[in-house]
Amino acid sequence: MTEVIKVGGAVVEDVEQLAALLDAFAKLGSPKILVHGGGRSATRLAGQLGVESHMAGGRRITEEKMLKIVTMVYGGLVNKNIVAKLQARGVNALGLTGADLNLIRAHRRPTTPEGIDFGFVGDVDSADGARLQQLLDAGITPVVAPLTHDGRGLLLNTNADTIAMAVATALPEQTSLTFCFDLPGVLRDAKDPSTLIPRLTEADFRALVADGTIAGGMIPKLENAFKALREGVIKVRITSFHDLQGGTVITL
Amino acid sequence: MTEVIKVGGAVVEDVEQLAALLDAFAKLGSPKILVHGGGRSATRLAGQLGVESHMAGGRRITEEKMLKIVTMVYGGLVNKNIVAKLQARGVNALGLTGADLNLIRAHRRPTTPEGIDFGFVGDVDSADGARLQQLLDAGITPVVAPLTHDGRGLLLNTNADTIAMAVATALPEQTSLTFCFDLPGVLRDAKDPSTLIPRLTEADFRALVADGTIAGGMIPKLENAFKALREGVIKVRITSFHDLQGGTVITL
Repeated sequence: MTEVIKVGGAVVEDVEQLAALLDAFAKLGSPKILVHGGGRSATRLAGQLGVESHMAGGRRITEEKMLKIVTMVYGGLVNKNIVAKLQARGVNALGLTGADLNLIRAHRRPTTPEGIDFGFVGDVDSADGARLQQLLDAGITPVVAPLTHDGRGLLLNTNADTIAMAVATALPEQTSLTFCFDLPGVLRDAKDPSTLIPRLTEADFRALVADGTIAGGMIPKLENAFKALREGVIKVRITSFHDLQGGTVITL
Repeated sequence: MTEVIKVGGAVVEDVEQLAALLDAFAKLGSPKILVHGGGRSATRLAGQLGVESHMAGGRRITEEKMLKIVTMVYGGLVNKNIVAKLQARGVNALGLTGADLNLIRAHRRPTTPEGIDFGFVGDVDSADGARLQQLLDAGITPVVAPLTHDGRGLLLNTNADTIAMAVATALPEQTSLTFCFDLPGVLRDAKDPSTLIPRLTEADFRALVADGTIAGGMIPKLENAFKALREGVIKVRITSFHDLQGGTVITL
């Protein structure tokens, strides 16, 4: 079974947390793929350059200057540092964006009915699972940055959870998908790790959203998890960056 | 025969020149590899961020902040834009640094006898020509950024001409190496394109350096060319970015 691990910006931007994640990732058996974010570094660099980050509905609007910044941060700084650190751990990592090998095609998101133009944000059209499988079969570990392309020369900014989903569902072999961050998993009380929910069904999820136990950014993450299961991913896990085999297992 | 094309920062940072280069590159038969620079963009970004560029003997000293900048610019901005633009031209490009697939190993340059510490600059130890050949055999066109790694998790800044040399000499098949820039080739008078030298031997080169006709940055470029020929590259060419089959052919 191929493991697709997605890690967010907060972990990859903390030297010690990133080291712990990469130790855990290196110990996983192959085949495996790492998908990473990096939004906080992008926001910080934008601030240093005097480029304002505009948000709409919790999502970044990617203006042209911001597209350059995320291309530098996601495709360069974060991706290549992870690759070098995995090579140091004996993992034959290959850093990729959706443009490399034409892996992930996307189109620029249309202006919403409410008139919001997200700028250079890409909604995924297709991911080349067969090509990723060839890389895995050759002993290569892809490290995927949250950038796609439109096939006409334009790079696009795409949410890392969406990239992880697209990659996991495109692979021809059985796949598990793990979202890891700085909490032990899905908690009943975000401040108390002992309230970890070890298994979560879609019915449980709906009930916990209805009573307010699950809220905020966890909701789209779990919606994505159920979508992945419906699209054929065998197992979805939400866990801590230093325990890739623990946390909450999500089932339909 | 595999063609390795090296293009410098001045061309890749000019939208129209880059488009002309990529048109010419796309038209070349396969197999082929593109190696690019990007120093001017790095210097500009450093200026915007208030990071000073220190030079010694015409070479950039790579302090820690500058290493981050070149990782962003070479590995992200320049590399991924070239990849996306080649994909739009039907070339199945894959952006790489020396860390990806452990392609190019280097060590940090020791402090010189004169006491100059170049910082995070890598001198190449080895390039994995067999792996590059596998990619070429799979119909993939590598696009290589001037970054290497030390195998212990550290990225290093390495001169793009040196990367092109290392790649061309490591490939197992016969290889030609083309350095392209914004002049038609090696000129007797840098201001007069009609003084193009169509073929240049090492003896000619020594004589033209002695009489001052060839000077400045062209000297290390030509020294590299002769080194490549001595190490088994079949043909070295110095030419314009829009005429990859013209210019000056260098022979021993």
